[in-house]
This record gives sequence, structure tokens and C-alpha cells, in this order.
Amino acid sequence: MTDSHCFDTSRLDALFAPRSIAVVGASDQASKIGGIPLDYLLRFGYGGALYAVNPRASRVQGLPAHERLAAIGAPVDLAIVAVPQSQVAGVLEDAAAARVQSMVLFSSGYAETGSDGTAAQQALARRAQEAGIRLIGPNCLGFMRPGHQVYATFSPAPGGGLVRPGRIGMVSQSGAFGAYAYSLARERGLGLSLWATTGNEADVQLADGLAWLAQDPETDVIMAYMEGCRDGPRLRAALALAQERGKPVVMCKVGTSALGAAAAASHTASLAGNDAVYEAVFRRYGVLRAHSITDFFALAASAYIARAPKGRSIGLFTVSGGVGAMMADDASAAGLEVAPLSDAAQRQLREWVPFAAPRNPVDITGQVTNDMTLLERSARLMLADRQFDSWLGFFAAGGLSDAFWPVLQSLVQTLRTHHPDTLLAVSTLCPPERRDALEALGCLVFADPGAAIRCIGALARLHETPQALPAMADAGSALHLPAGTLSEQRSMALLAEAGVPVVPHRLVRTAAEAAQAAQEMGGRIALKVCSDAIAHKSDVGGVALNLADAAGAQAAFDRILANARQARPDARIDGALAAPMVQGGVECIAGVHRDPVFGPVLMFGLGGIHAEILRDVSLRLLPITRDDALAMVRELRAFAVLDGARGRPRVDLDSIADTLCALAGFAQRAGATLESAEINPLIARPREDGGCVAVDALVIGREAA
Amino acid sequence: MTDSHCFDTSRLDALFAPRSIAVVGASDQASKIGGIPLDYLLRFGYGGALYAVNPRASRVQGLPAHERLAAIGAPVDLAIVAVPQSQVAGVLEDAAAARVQSMVLFSSGYAETGSDGTAAQQALARRAQEAGIRLIGPNCLGFMRPGHQVYATFSPAPGGGLVRPGRIGMVSQSGAFGAYAYSLARERGLGLSLWATTGNEADVQLADGLAWLAQDPETDVIMAYMEGCRDGPRLRAALALAQERGKPVVMCKVGTSALGAAAAASHTASLAGNDAVYEAVFRRYGVLRAHSITDFFALAASAYIARAPKGRSIGLFTVSGGVGAMMADDASAAGLEVAPLSDAAQRQLREWVPFAAPRNPVDITGQVTNDMTLLERSARLMLADRQFDSWLGFFAAGGLSDAFWPVLQSLVQTLRTHHPDTLLAVSTLCPPERRDALEALGCLVFADPGAAIRCIGALARLHETPQALPAMADAGSALHLPAGTLSEQRSMALLAEAGVPVVPHRLVRTAAEAAQAAQEMGGRIALKVCSDAIAHKSDVGGVALNLADAAGAQAAFDRILANARQARPDARIDGALAAPMVQGGVECIAGVHRDPVFGPVLMFGLGGIHAEILRDVSLRLLPITRDDALAMVRELRAFAVLDGARGRPRVDLDSIADTLCALAGFAQRAGATLESAEINPLIARPREDGGCVAVDALVIGREAA
Repeated sequence: MTDSHCFDTSRLDALFAPRSIAVVGASDQASKIGGIPLDYLLRFGYGGALYAVNPRASRVQGLPAHERLAAIGAPVDLAIVAVPQSQVAGVLEDAAAARVQSMVLFSSGYAETGSDGTAAQQALARRAQEAGIRLIGPNCLGFMRPGHQVYATFSPAPGGGLVRPGRIGMVSQSGAFGAYAYSLARERGLGLSLWATTGNEADVQLADGLAWLAQDPETDVIMAYMEGCRDGPRLRAALALAQERGKPVVMCKVGTSALGAAAAASHTASLAGNDAVYEAVFRRYGVLRAHSITDFFALAASAYIARAPKGRSIGLFTVSGGVGAMMADDASAAGLEVAPLSDAAQRQLREWVPFAAPRNPVDITGQVTNDMTLLERSARLMLADRQFDSWLGFFAAGGLSDAFWPVLQSLVQTLRTHHPDTLLAVSTLCPPERRDALEALGCLVFADPGAAIRCIGALARLHETPQALPAMADAGSALHLPAGTLSEQRSMALLAEAGVPVVPHRLVRTAAEAAQAAQEMGGRIALKVCSDAIAHKSDVGGVALNLADAAGAQAAFDRILANARQARPDARIDGALAAPMVQGGVECIAGVHRDPVFGPVLMFGLGGIHAEILRDVSLRLLPITRDDALAMVRELRAFAVLDGARGRPRVDLDSIADTLCALAGFAQRAGATLESAEINPLIARPREDGGCVAVDALVIGREAA
Repeated sequence: MTDSHCFDTSRLDALFAPRSIAVVGASDQASKIGGIPLDYLLRFGYGGALYAVNPRASRVQGLPAHERLAAIGAPVDLAIVAVPQSQVAGVLEDAAAARVQSMVLFSSGYAETGSDGTAAQQALARRAQEAGIRLIGPNCLGFMRPGHQVYATFSPAPGGGLVRPGRIGMVSQSGAFGAYAYSLARERGLGLSLWATTGNEADVQLADGLAWLAQDPETDVIMAYMEGCRDGPRLRAALALAQERGKPVVMCKVGTSALGAAAAASHTASLAGNDAVYEAVFRRYGVLRAHSITDFFALAASAYIARAPKGRSIGLFTVSGGVGAMMADDASAAGLEVAPLSDAAQRQLREWVPFAAPRNPVDITGQVTNDMTLLERSARLMLADRQFDSWLGFFAAGGLSDAFWPVLQSLVQTLRTHHPDTLLAVSTLCPPERRDALEALGCLVFADPGAAIRCIGALARLHETPQALPAMADAGSALHLPAGTLSEQRSMALLAEAGVPVVPHRLVRTAAEAAQAAQEMGGRIALKVCSDAIAHKSDVGGVALNLADAAGAQAAFDRILANARQARPDARIDGALAAPMVQGGVECIAGVHRDPVFGPVLMFGLGGIHAEILRDVSLRLLPITRDDALAMVRELRAFAVLDGARGRPRVDLDSIADTLCALAGFAQRAGATLESAEINPLIARPREDGGCVAVDALVIGREAA
């Protein structure tokens, strides 16, 4: 189930599939902002009812000019509004009176200009909502539907040549980026179902566009350009819908660097947010993230041409040993598995070509030029031997050769027929029409074999992402946390009750109780000042470690309480928490933090410099499955440290996964009253030493709205 | 000074610039291996003397056929040999008799086939050397010089269309890769001076080709494809020569992954080696490493079109805020500095365009379509305000527009004239002839702005690499190390003498001496068994740490010596090394290890998991400068740990650099008698705590050849 209640997509049909269009501020000059859309609509043959609105003309571009929308006297699904900012409010009243269904607003001068503009934009959005008008913009380039001759844009891009109609939908928050992407799609020969820019997003957001495309029967693949998202649940619901409908989403999101994020924020007034959280969002819904414009198009074209591979195994086939080695490097970097052929298959290949490399990559060498049948024989042998999820063949400039082309085409046809479940790709130089012919067979074609491999590695993610929201074990009854910092004792109690293994501990209120605790616990103990008001106990000198005996504990108690009282005379102090020192193990950190846009995010990492300096942490949106929890542990760059590398003991990964699930369940129960919960350190130990254990914890509640 | 004595490049002129060519095994059929080169030479108009050798014909492709080379009766600079392996030895004798200068040998059946083939290849190389014949191959596709119509190849690539003559030289160890690269160069419009494949490298190696191109007056940029190198000094000398001549080398080297390295090794019988060492070699000589075929061509074309930027500052200019944010992300990832314009310049831009983003990236928005003069004004303002090393402008599809094209062309011309020291790049869609026009002005042109930024970031390396071998302070007199493992005491003594700060230590031979040492040293001490025969002391239970007093030291001495004797009854044991425990600091590792191909390599990293598991280490070839040593420390991913991140004390970086220089000097003095020297741990501490100190060391000597 997706949260599709976030959308009212039926009302978007009036916007994106209008049966009637009025251009407000229509100009006779085809180069003016109010002239361009009318020119496109007339020139490219929009089939619905078309009206021009201009109070100072009688005819515009051959159409009768209406004084205002309400004077048209017929239904208007979409008003394209090209008037200065000062006239927009009046046009909106006119549109409300005329019962216009939706509106594209090009005008700038709103949130992108500062606080006055933001207020004007909010007023606009409120009025449009009251009037039942869906609004795209302001400060946007509008949209187009190439298959339906709908041109609600003043972008010059279509004037330079039309993109062909097709089954890829494209939504962009940036107009200029969108216009460039339109031109690139045209040059690359990609067919578009919708091209839309959302500008300031007073009403219709990128997410609405995604959701509409997810339900559009004319769209198979979605391309999106994003600078930031203000409504996390809406974006999640849109991505979930696209995933449910099996439509790959290729996302170009800027702001991976601090400077890029600042540049994006200064642009269409978008909220940049934490890129790592976006990454977690994309991972959750199997979004294919593009890190360059080249990737953006390569991934979208590939997702359209071929079905995603079912897994990560790949067969590599080459006529050049050198390129075979490059492909092996690239496959390794892309996380693909280059498993060797069986001994029997390798023997067979060696019989055919004595100096072939028969393992995988399979290099049948230049010998293929003497015997072209080798190609099909060896490729089929590879796929019969192992049901590779993907297969990539490198044929150098073969695609340019008239002699080789029929062999290549027949090879692809044969493999397609006999191995319909394998993603096929070839790397060769060939003219565009030959590339089209191979792509029409569902085969990817790249000049650079490395680019093919990077695409295949990315596409493999689609089948790795569960399609439904994971069903969590019932986390238990709702919890209402008090706002603010909770003491370590209260934090530990809450997490222990949620199923997190915590170190045995006891609140001691006097030095004598501390001494007694040291005696009863045996071994070395730690004492930490306990107070709701003191979140960072070390900073106030409120921590004493490695206390060996009762006398030491007694002295330490007095010392840390005196320190804390001096540093924070206002704080109500409960006493100190006494706990045995945990020996050995690996320091980890686990927590849940509320992201202002996307809500609670679960985090796991190694402690100390790994999390804080090297940023080697993994994040997930909630809810999670236990498999997600295990994957979080395994994807750390430093995972080998937990996994018994170099003779270290292997820690109990199951107990970590259970702890992460317990944290996630706790966050679910606390809902909107949780600001954060962090276990630092969580000591990971081998199973025989008791698995992982929380040694310190801090829960912070919040005022739920 | 470079080691150019490694080369005899004058003799390579007969090979690559032959005044006369004979084709041995010449065939009448233009599609046969012995027919193709003759066909090319005749068809494309080779201007030197040309002879066909075929004992079973009277004429071949219109030329008189000679029975053998010696029968020609005129000088032959180059023999192209296209005969089966069984006839090669005979042809070589014939060539020796005819005083042939050089030879291309296509035949396979040598080292790539196993040990018999290797022996045959060695015999071949010896005989060619005796006869004074330079030999390229066997098992190679030969070479071409497009500007001189020399076609000593049987590759079908030129048959599909000729590459244009130009100033980029290309050498490849792989024939099939080379052939593909030839076709790609043709499609991309790159002009080549030389195209050569070196195959099994019985005599002429990739390095010889590089060195010849470094000295070739017709070559400006060098492209190389490498699988492995057998002669490290020769490769280093060739790269040094290219650097000295100011010719950028763009290198595609396979084998970054274990699988890729294995695939490369199974190919042309090359030695794969450790990729990280190659990376250090490339860094040393400012080689631009390409990680994909796309990069290979983008870097080579860029290095040819534009001079490398003098530094890492870049001005980013855009007509799209979204793309501006992407460019900022990309620049950050490429290590470029996007410094803001002055306040005055920002104010000026805001006066011109109120909603411009004036900082850097500078986004002048769509406003430019209303006032095209804005473009040149704002770009010149940027460059006048800050002398950016590079400047990149994004103009969307502007390059396709007939109205915009003159504006763009004039912009590039003006910037080129007024800012000759700034690397210029534009990102736009444009037809090939417009791209050529901008490139002719020395301006890079990319459709994808991210690709432009990655290229600029790579080119910046060229000016960061010192052109001359660093002059080392006189390291001192030569040292002759004994072969095999040295005890910790001897290792520490050698390194201390070389200038490495070592922890105070003392050899104790009895338990009583150990107790005395504990008393005299005060504080906690460590005891470690001392023996030339025991390199890994912990593995035999030969280490006791944190000994608090004389009694503890006494007992520990007996225990660790008993352990060591039990584990290694044969070992001669000197006693134990006593040293005070070093408190605090950051554990590092520093060492010199002999690479079998490239000789001593200096290594530095953080200790423990950082070096061993996360492979976060930096490497340098010797000799190094002190700046190199500092750079080694700074380039660690975990450098922040040493640099005082998160309130940690900042360690004394100078003392680490001094220690690395001392290690390098030691390695220089020990020369070929050093196998490895490793300090593990080297404890890095703040200056006030005494800087870094070696706590354990292991030197291994070797039998010098």
C-alpha cells in the first residue's frame, strides 16, 4: 500500500491533459513570453479548444481575443498565464469566476525574491486552492506533452526542433535545466511523454508530477531533476507509487557538496537538506540516482530499452583481452559478479580457440575474424552454462563493418530469443540506425564498455529493492515522550524496554551507594552523572571510568557531582549511574534522528572517528526489515572490522541487527514525540561474549505538532 | 636529469620513420595478413622504397617479388614480417644477412602460449639484438604513422576510414584495444602522429614508444594503454622524458581490481603488479590516468586543445541555477576551488541582474536572452575580479542557436585575448563545426558540464608535479644490509642512526636485567623478545606490555623467552628489548618496501585497521622532497584524525615528514640491499609531547644482485 491519498491526481488531468486551453496575456509576437505558447499550440496542432485572452486586442495570432477568461463562455481546463506579477491576482479572480480547472503561471517575482515574494506566493496558493484551481509555478517554464501537442511553455527549446513523442516522462524543478534536458533528449533520440518544470512549487510539486507519471498509461520510465523537497511524505508516496507500478525513476539531485547545496538553495527557493538522507530515500524506493547529465540520459535510456537484470551476475565477452581486463575492473567497481564458467564450458572454448581466455571475461581473440560462427557459438555456450543476469559483449568497431553487422544482429536476435531473462548489452561503434535496430531488440548499445557496466550495475538495484513497504513486527503500543533531553537512566530504561540490550546499571544517589555498587558489581565500574538537564556528561566533568574499588567509587561520586553542580548550578541532578566497565569489543554508534523533511532516519556506524570524521555511517528510512538492518551493517566501508578481518574476533551481527530493529520499533512507537535516540557507544562483541550492548544512551523528546 | 640512457631512441627512427620497407610474406590478397600492410602502403601512398618478399611468386600486388630480404640488394630500414611462427627464425637470419634495421613481427605463438613460447621469444630477442635489429612484437598488430603513410599493420581499422594526421601519439600494449582506439580517434576527429601496438614486447616496450614520442617533434600529447610493465626504470625514464619535454601523457592502465589484473596477466603475458604502485608512478610524473575509454579520449583531447590550468581555482558561469549547483558539486568532487567574487563585483552583477546569483557559480539567469551583452560583461567582470586558473561557462543549447552563436564565439575570442593564462571551457550543445571553431581558439567544449569539470580537475595535476627529480639532501654513505630479517634492536639502531626518532630502549639479557630496566626507566614498560630470526614477535607470545614494576618485568621476561623458545626452538635469541610504554598519541605506520618492478616505495598511513583493512595509505616512489612527505600525510582520507579534528590534539606533522624523509634517505643508502623497513607503530604526538616516535621497527635486507 502506498500513501497515494497524498495526491489528487485526477485533478492533475485537467492540467496535463487539457481538453481546452486559454492563453492569458496572449501576444501577436511569436517571440514574446505570451506569444510563444500560442505559436507552438497553433503551429504544432493542438487538437482541443484554444482561446486567446488579451483585453487590448481583437485578434491574436489569428484567433479572436477575449477580454478575460470569464468572457470566453466555454469550459477552460488550462489557463496559461503570461502576465506581469502585478496582474496575476486579478487573473486568478477572473479564472475563479470562469471556473478554470488549472493554471500554468510563468510570472516571476515570488518566493525566489525574498520574504515579500514568499507572502505573495502563499496568498496566491491559498486563493487557487479555494477556487479549486491546480497551479503549476510561479517562476516556471511550464510543461509540454509532445504526443498531444500540448505546449504550455515559453521555453525556446521546441523552437530548435521537436523531441519525438515517446514513453519517458521528465519533471524538473529547474526550468533552464529542463530546457537543456529537452534538447539533449532530442539529440539523443529519446521519446518523451511529458516534459514539465515546477518552478517555485506553490501548489504542484515535483512529487505530484512523479505521481501523475506513475499512473500515466503512456509513460514507462520517469526522469526527474530535483534541488530539494519540502514535503517528504508526498515525495515518498510518489516514489512508492512509481515503484508499485514498476516504473523506474532516474533522479538527478544536486547538492552533494556544501557549495552545491548552497547554490541550489539560493536558486528556486528550495530547501536543500541533508544529501545523505536523500540518498536513503532513493535507496528505499529503488530510485536510480544519476551523478552527471551523461548518466541521467544513459540510465533513463537503458531503463527504457531493457528490463532491469534480476541479479548481479554478468557474463563478459570480448574480442580484446585488454578490454576484457578493463571490463573486469569496471564490473568489480560496479559491484557485479564475474563468476567463472564451468570447467566443461572452458574446455569447450579452448577446443574451439586454443588461446582463448575461457573463464569470464571470455576472450575469443581476433580468431573470430577467421570464423564468424565462433561468436554465436561461444556466446550461447556462456549463457547456457550459467544463466547470467546480464551479458555484455565487446566488438570494437565491428558495428561499422558491413560484413560484421549481420553477424552481430543475428547474435543479438538469437540471444534475445533463447535467453529472454538476461539483460543484453553490446559495446561497439556503430551508426545511429544500427544502434536503433539493436535497441529495438531490447539490447543496450554503448561505445564505452565501462559506461555499459556502470549502467547495468545501477539497473541491478531495481530488483534489489523490495516493492512493498516492509511489514514490521508490531512495535507495541504508542509512546508519548516528554519534550527535551531525558537522563541516561530514563533513556536506557526506554530503550531496554524496547528490546535494546543495555549494560546492567543502577542509579546511586550518594557516595555510599556508589561504593556499595562498586562492591556488588565487582570488577571496574563507571560512574556518570544522571540528569535530564545534562546531555553531554563528559563536557561537565561528569564521568569517571575504570573505578577499581569502593573507595575509588566513593571519591569519584563526590567529584563528578561537584563538577556537574559547578558547571550547571541550575540542573536538577538525580545522582549518578553506576555500571560495570565493558571490556573489549568494537565501539559502534546507533541512533534514530528526525529529519525535518523526511522524518525519522535510522543510523549505524563504527564509533569514534569512523562516524564522526570519516562519515562511514549507513542510513535508512523507517520502517525497516531485519534484512535492511543487516545490510546497514554490511555496507559500512569498515565492515571488515566487525567481520573478523585480520584475525580479529567476528562480532555478533545478529544482535546488532536486532538492536537496530528495536530502535526502529521504539521510534515508531514514539512517533512524532521523538526528536532523537542515540546509543553511543554500542559495544559490538562476539556472540560468546554476549553480543552487542548499549553502554550509553540519550533520548530527546519533542513537542508533537 | 632523466635516465634517458635507458633508451637508444635513435635506432627507433629506423622503425618508426623508415625510409625503406620490405613486406615479408607479402600476399596478393589484400585481405590476408601478408596482403593488408602492402595494400595500405600502396593505396595510401607510402613515399619511401617498398619491397615485397615472397619466394613463391614473381609479382605481388604489382610489385616484383623478392625471394628473400638479402636478395633485395638495397638498404631496408623496416621489415614487416607476416609469416607463420615456424618460419620466423629463418626470416630473422635473412634479415641479419640483409642488414635490416628494424622489424615488425605479427606472428603469434610466443610468450602468450606458455613456457615453450617464452623460450622461443627469448631466443628471438637475443638473436635480433646480436644482429642489431630493433624488433616490435611478436604477437602485435604493428604500427602506423598517419602523417607519413607508414602502415606496418594488419589491423582492419584503417580500412574502415583513415584517422587524420595530427599531433597526438598513441601506444598500446594491446592490439585489439589499440584498433578500437584508432576507430574512436577517427570518429572523434582526433589527429594522430603515431599509432603503435607493442604486443609481447620481446624488444621494444611501451616505454620505448613513449620515449620516442617524447622526443618526436611532430607529437604534443601522448596516449598510452598499459596492462603491465616489466622494466620499471625504463618506464620511469620514459615518463620523466615526456614530462621534461612538457608533453602530457594520458594513461589507461587496466588491473585496478584483482579480477582485472588476473585478466590482464592472462592476456599478453604481462606482469600485473600492484596497482597502487603504478598510481604512485603516475603521480610522480604527472601522468593523467584515465579510468574509462571515454576519459581516455576526453583527457587527451583536452590536453591537446588547452594548456593545463596553473592552479585549482575555477570560475563557474551559468544561465541555469540548477546546473550551477551541479557544477559546484562536481568542482568540489574534482578538488577545484570555487572562491567567491569580491563584494564589489557581486554588487555590480546584482546591479545588472537583480536576481542573479553573483557569488560563484555566477548565475545570470535567463535574463541573458533579453540582453546578450550581459554575457561578455559578466564573464569579463569575473575574470578581472579574480584571475581564475580556469573558467567554465554553461550555455545550455545556445550553441545550436544561430542568433546566439556569434555572441558565444565573440565571448570566447575576447576572453582568450584578455586572459591568455586562464583555461577556458564551455558547456553547450553545438554542431561539430562550431565545436571545432571553439576548440581552435583553445577552448574546451563539452555537452556535459560535469565532464568538463572532471577534465579540468585532472589537467590541474600537470602543474602540480615538479618537473625535475627532487634533489635530496645527501643521504650519507652507502649501507650494505645483511640479507634477511634484522632483530628489533638492530632495526631500531639503523633507523635511529638514519634520523628516525625512536623510543628509548635497552637490550636486557636476563630477568634480573629486565627488572633493573623497569626500575630505572620508571613508569610502565614493554618487553619484546629480540632475535634476528623472529620477525613477528606477538605471534610467538614474545611481547609483554604495560609492565608496572620490577617484579612484573622479571616474570614477563621469563615468560616471553620461554614462549619464544618453545615456538622457535631453532632461533638464536639475544634477549628482550625493554622500552617505556608510550602514552597517548595516534598509531601510524611508515615503511619502505621494494616493489619488484619499480624498486623502493615509501608508505605512510594510520595504524591498525586504517592501513590493514581500509587501505588508507599513501605511497611515493623515491626520492621524495619534504613537500612530498607532507603531502603523503595530508592526502590520507583520515588526515583529520591527525589534524586535530573534533577537539583532538593536533599532532606534529613536521616530525612525521622528517621521519619519512629519514626513512627515504635510509632506503637510498641501503640501495639494492634493502627489502623492506617498517615502523609499526610510529606514534604521532603533538609537538609539545615530543612529536612522533618509532615504537617498533623491522628491517629486512636482501641479497643484492
